Amino acid sequence: MSSRRCWARYARWPTVSEHDRARRHWLRRGAALGAGAGLGIADVPAGARDLPDSWRTPGQGFGNYGQPVDGGPIRWMAVEPGTTGTGVSWTPLHELDGTIIPNGLHFERHHAGIPAVRTEEWRLAVEGLVDTPLSLELAALRRLPRHSRQAFIECAGNSNALWRPDPVQAPVGWLHGLVSCSEWTGVTLATLFDLVGVGRGARWLIADGLDASGMTISLPLAALPDGAMVALFQNGEPLRAAQGHPARLVLPGLEGVAQVKWLGRLTLSDRPVLSRFDTVAYTDLQPDGSSHRFTRTMGVKSVITDPAVGRAVIGGPSGITEVSGLAWSGTGHIVRVELTHDGGRHWSDAVLEGTPRDTAFTRFRWPWEHGRPDITADRVRPVRPVLLASRATDSTGRVQPGRATLIREQGHGAYYHYNAVTAVEIGADGRVTHVHLEG
Amino acid sequence: MSSRRCWARYARWPTVSEHDRARRHWLRRGAALGAGAGLGIADVPAGARDLPDSWRTPGQGFGNYGQPVDGGPIRWMAVEPGTTGTGVSWTPLHELDGTIIPNGLHFERHHAGIPAVRTEEWRLAVEGLVDTPLSLELAALRRLPRHSRQAFIECAGNSNALWRPDPVQAPVGWLHGLVSCSEWTGVTLATLFDLVGVGRGARWLIADGLDASGMTISLPLAALPDGAMVALFQNGEPLRAAQGHPARLVLPGLEGVAQVKWLGRLTLSDRPVLSRFDTVAYTDLQPDGSSHRFTRTMGVKSVITDPAVGRAVIGGPSGITEVSGLAWSGTGHIVRVELTHDGGRHWSDAVLEGTPRDTAFTRFRWPWEHGRPDITADRVRPVRPVLLASRATDSTGRVQPGRATLIREQGHGAYYHYNAVTAVEIGADGRVTHVHLEG
Repeated sequence: MSSRRCWARYARWPTVSEHDRARRHWLRRGAALGAGAGLGIADVPAGARDLPDSWRTPGQGFGNYGQPVDGGPIRWMAVEPGTTGTGVSWTPLHELDGTIIPNGLHFERHHAGIPAVRTEEWRLAVEGLVDTPLSLELAALRRLPRHSRQAFIECAGNSNALWRPDPVQAPVGWLHGLVSCSEWTGVTLATLFDLVGVGRGARWLIADGLDASGMTISLPLAALPDGAMVALFQNGEPLRAAQGHPARLVLPGLEGVAQVKWLGRLTLSDRPVLSRFDTVAYTDLQPDGSSHRFTRTMGVKSVITDPAVGRAVIGGPSGITEVSGLAWSGTGHIVRVELTHDGGRHWSDAVLEGTPRDTAFTRFRWPWEHGRPDITADRVRPVRPVLLASRATDSTGRVQPGRATLIREQGHGAYYHYNAVTAVEIGADGRVTHVHLEG
Repeated sequence: MSSRRCWARYARWPTVSEHDRARRHWLRRGAALGAGAGLGIADVPAGARDLPDSWRTPGQGFGNYGQPVDGGPIRWMAVEPGTTGTGVSWTPLHELDGTIIPNGLHFERHHAGIPAVRTEEWRLAVEGLVDTPLSLELAALRRLPRHSRQAFIECAGNSNALWRPDPVQAPVGWLHGLVSCSEWTGVTLATLFDLVGVGRGARWLIADGLDASGMTISLPLAALPDGAMVALFQNGEPLRAAQGHPARLVLPGLEGVAQVKWLGRLTLSDRPVLSRFDTVAYTDLQPDGSSHRFTRTMGVKSVITDPAVGRAVIGGPSGITEVSGLAWSGTGHIVRVELTHDGGRHWSDAVLEGTPRDTAFTRFRWPWEHGRPDITADRVRPVRPVLLASRATDSTGRVQPGRATLIREQGHGAYYHYNAVTAVEIGADGRVTHVHLEG
């Protein structure tokens, strides 16, 4: 294929004096690299051999679907031995910035690998206690009114290495990276319920996934969050196979396992199924030995993504080093993130970027002023030792707990829903290590 | 690598009666596909051979960096004959939804391919009329205070096939897809200017790219938009090679060519360079024969992405078909999108999704009620013929012009900055074609 659609159209040629001026700029540009040289409309004098190759060589081509830069961030993975695709991959939060996670870096948790779903044969059944059961093919679903919103998805088991007594020395993404945030687009459950007519006595929604894990989740209708949808698109494009193509549940604020991928059936019922995902897994053992079920809602949480454990902090060229991280809550939007640099004795407010939205990532930033070195130097001496931590508050007034408080409340048998304050120490040599704070 | 971090923790086994209830659900689940069968905790009886393969076979594995679904949307490309990588690729807007464009589908326009920039050797020079010139390596840039915001980037030549007298019968993405929207993160020009100190007499910013096109752009300092930045991240991850790795300009609201990729140098100057990208290309020939330079700001615009030219519209299962599209403006945020279904005689307001932001995509939706067919049918008869068009208004009061108005103002020699109302006709057979409206 070829086209000249976006080509330069030579509506007006430059005057001679303009040519000269441009040539002088190009000469300076060459001189800046130690060569008196010009390119493009100017002559190329001797010395041009010192120009970078990229100025002299036409670049590489491009493709139908772009790929990340060589050496760019990838996910850390853990695959259960003896399985084809049971396991998890962590989003490298410490190598990213902003609030959107690219689809290729969204965390994944597969209970039995990625199933082969034939889109042409696939139907979404909506049935049970309904007036009119439906069986919808993908094209029919796509014609229904749709809705887009950003929402995080977090595995209930995210951060659970932090229940351990000793702080694990791993980068933020490998501790807290079972959470990602995307813009999801789909058909809301409200729209589907209007279509089928919810029957008298329906109290539960049962969602079946098409993977071989036997995925079935029971959800109280009364606890379905605003914006709950059958999602068809993630960050603009159709769902990827690993994210549940052709359709998955997105339930803003609830734990990841409830947001069933490769969705095959929605059943309105008067009772829960009590599947293994309702009972033996994803339940919370309490200090008194009982276990809480259907604790689907994720707590308020924040993590500092930069500086990151395992790196050395060296002052920036401006005397200010960016401290930055992510905050989110399953029950609302973030209204405040506090930062401490002395281990919790003093806290001050970080800047929340943009307008925080319900159940979406909010990026916080905190310009850490540690003195202004020579701004022409790329590297300066290590900064003084500090103890950094962040603490988030959401729109319902929930405050991220301290670690000791969380353990006191949840006990030592807890495994899911770790959302306590995480702290890092920056030593006198600039090294960043993970520490547990008191309180 | 292996780990059991996110595994089920068997805190509590289900009771026998719960097992029974779950088994009954699985039996129903099997029965729904014509087989009395259970999976997981239930026995697998005869007839299980009729279950879908995905329920009986462990799925495929996953990788460090996820890929799109097989058969998913890709970009249409045009490469200039005889070059390695000079050309364009169009974002398939008609196959996407929401407001974020995945990085792999962001449009690209390369004037001389993708250069090989060695990150370790790369420096960003900030010099010219400044108090303290700087040469910053990537690690130093990344330590500076950063800023994230969504912004569209649109090639000035986007939609220029619409200047033609006859409406081109191509899908929305291939006509209007030289525009995409991402969340960008980087160091604002304001931060960099504070670092170097802008010298007396500086009126222009000159940006040099490292590709072989001789890319140099002159920008009046007074016209730099809010949020102008040296971007390092796109939708969370480090810039891709095709998007200017390691750094590019992002100038919210300005035409794409000004947002220089593979940025190598910023020069503060008292005058423009008048490079070929300032003069012979990306200038606007006027009806009187003169040519306007430095017309960098993009206009207010909207396009309907669904229904899409080339497809047939068939009623949705609810009697409502989603009409949806994107709107954006280089001078503010979208405050209104009007829809017509009768070729412009009557207009009514579409719903704007979320909170429209300056110089970002806004998704509009308009549930088109065309009668409620049998909701159990997946397909219904074609709907009545209609003439659909959208018209956007931004926060500065600018209104997207009609096509005749735009041509009257810009003349028949215009090539860039086409932002007129685009219309489609849905015929009695449901086919969607592109049409030019009067007015």
